[in-house]
Amino acid sequence: VITISAGDPAGIGPEVIVKALITGKPADCCQPVVVGSLELISKTLKDCSSDWQAISISDLSQAGSGHGLIDVLDIGELDLRQVATGKACEESGRANGIWLRTAADLVQRGDAGATVMGPVNSESLKLAKVALGDMLGMEPGKRYLSLLSGPLRVVHIFDHVYLQDVCRLISEDIVLNAIEDTHRSMEQWGMKRPRIAVAGLNPHANGPQENDAIIPAIKKAKDSGIKVEGPISPDTVFRQAIEGKHDIVIAMFHDQGHIAIKTWGFAGNCALFLGAAYPFLSVGHGTAYDIAGKGIAQPDMMLSAILQGASLAAGNGFLSR
Amino acid sequence: VITISAGDPAGIGPEVIVKALITGKPADCCQPVVVGSLELISKTLKDCSSDWQAISISDLSQAGSGHGLIDVLDIGELDLRQVATGKACEESGRANGIWLRTAADLVQRGDAGATVMGPVNSESLKLAKVALGDMLGMEPGKRYLSLLSGPLRVVHIFDHVYLQDVCRLISEDIVLNAIEDTHRSMEQWGMKRPRIAVAGLNPHANGPQENDAIIPAIKKAKDSGIKVEGPISPDTVFRQAIEGKHDIVIAMFHDQGHIAIKTWGFAGNCALFLGAAYPFLSVGHGTAYDIAGKGIAQPDMMLSAILQGASLAAGNGFLSR
Repeated sequence: VITISAGDPAGIGPEVIVKALITGKPADCCQPVVVGSLELISKTLKDCSSDWQAISISDLSQAGSGHGLIDVLDIGELDLRQVATGKACEESGRANGIWLRTAADLVQRGDAGATVMGPVNSESLKLAKVALGDMLGMEPGKRYLSLLSGPLRVVHIFDHVYLQDVCRLISEDIVLNAIEDTHRSMEQWGMKRPRIAVAGLNPHANGPQENDAIIPAIKKAKDSGIKVEGPISPDTVFRQAIEGKHDIVIAMFHDQGHIAIKTWGFAGNCALFLGAAYPFLSVGHGTAYDIAGKGIAQPDMMLSAILQGASLAAGNGFLSR
Repeated sequence: VITISAGDPAGIGPEVIVKALITGKPADCCQPVVVGSLELISKTLKDCSSDWQAISISDLSQAGSGHGLIDVLDIGELDLRQVATGKACEESGRANGIWLRTAADLVQRGDAGATVMGPVNSESLKLAKVALGDMLGMEPGKRYLSLLSGPLRVVHIFDHVYLQDVCRLISEDIVLNAIEDTHRSMEQWGMKRPRIAVAGLNPHANGPQENDAIIPAIKKAKDSGIKVEGPISPDTVFRQAIEGKHDIVIAMFHDQGHIAIKTWGFAGNCALFLGAAYPFLSVGHGTAYDIAGKGIAQPDMMLSAILQGASLAAGNGFLSR
């Protein structure tokens, strides 16, 4: 069972989820369950002119309806009349917060194997006073945003942190934790003895943070038997990964990995939050309010996230694309 | 006239220069002159089994021999017997330093329109006590390493500087200077009203350096009539440039631009040192001692640098590839 939180109802989240599910591919490899509103998913199916139907389930044991049906765990938390397409509102944020937490709780207690987060709107969440960062536990050494884009897989140690603070906060412990968490998750999810590359922080991986934190962390990880290499020059390591030299790259900060992935331009990418005991995935795009309700949103990333989650949950490792 | 310093004699520099020149393309659009050793270029032509000949000129007014001949300004500074292929040595570094300075001096005083630097070896230069950084004047606010790769053109404000120092040193003046120098050079070299994009420093271009330095610098540049946009999120701006939205991107530090260009993987890139009154170009690769003398070095980047230099010197702007 893979839980999928429906995403912001005013954005393209429900549309891309529905479009991904009616390809039939997710139902072929897992039991996808949308955590959200039955009314919302039914309406979205109608907007997509699909002959699939949404049905309500009250428990994950009822999941697995298969082709033609979308299982929805409706926790009755959305008043659709209060939501205007393409506009942030408290109602959307409030409902989203509950769906997200429910979807994550179900996988946390083992009822589902992985969870995929539909795109959320930060303004809606703010209006509803939902702190996404706290909910996800996004702090260095606890959970790491990873982006997957074909052969290019990048774990980010620091996410939305000022560069001056990255330089100050980086430590041997934080880098070592990231290497160990990456190694453990990969092994657990089906990639045995992953070849991990660690990027440096400074040009040519040559500076004080390399000497004080990154090099000693890599040494300790190597000593414990992990297959890890680095620090590698940040401008070289991502191209090496694309060419197959590494299975996964640990980047020091947000833009190292984001520049590489977004500039390379591979479309089928999705996000994976490493550090949890279960695969927690999301998509590389947002709620795209500007095109919400127009029926033109592309479900590629959402489909990729669902299929990837199913593969990892089954211990089958990464899909090649 | 375009001067080309011959590069480290123990590396692939002379080989890629010769291979680029014997395509005949440089001679079709400019008068290329190699500043180096006649003996070295003659030997390299022989190694390439070419029927072109190297001839010695004593003055740039004698340049323009055209197809079949390579003009060499031999300043008699190399004892080839002291140079072992693929090995760093003082003799190589010493000769290279003199060739580089001569090639740059000639363009500085207007006898040539642009100069291209053959790949140098930092160890050889060090043995000969030649300080390349000082010679090039590579400091923020004076000269900027730019990388050109098809539609992706990136000016780097900070080059080999620790990230912690970039965060500390970045200032309104430095950013404004970079914008103005970029604008002035582009206008002078044939790209009228260039659309300049400025990258932020922090994730989503949102942080103290954006507020204190980058935003005010962009405002001042705009007020003076320059077409400039930003700060743009570092993970977005390079892809936008590839898609044609900007003519040139100003990156805050070495790896922002280097990660983008090297990960994107376009092969035909060359380097341009902005800030001088004349086009000063180089190649994206080094001396490649491991393949020196084997006859397998690819001249694409060198050819691209020579043709690009000729186009800029003539005020014809950038070549599309």
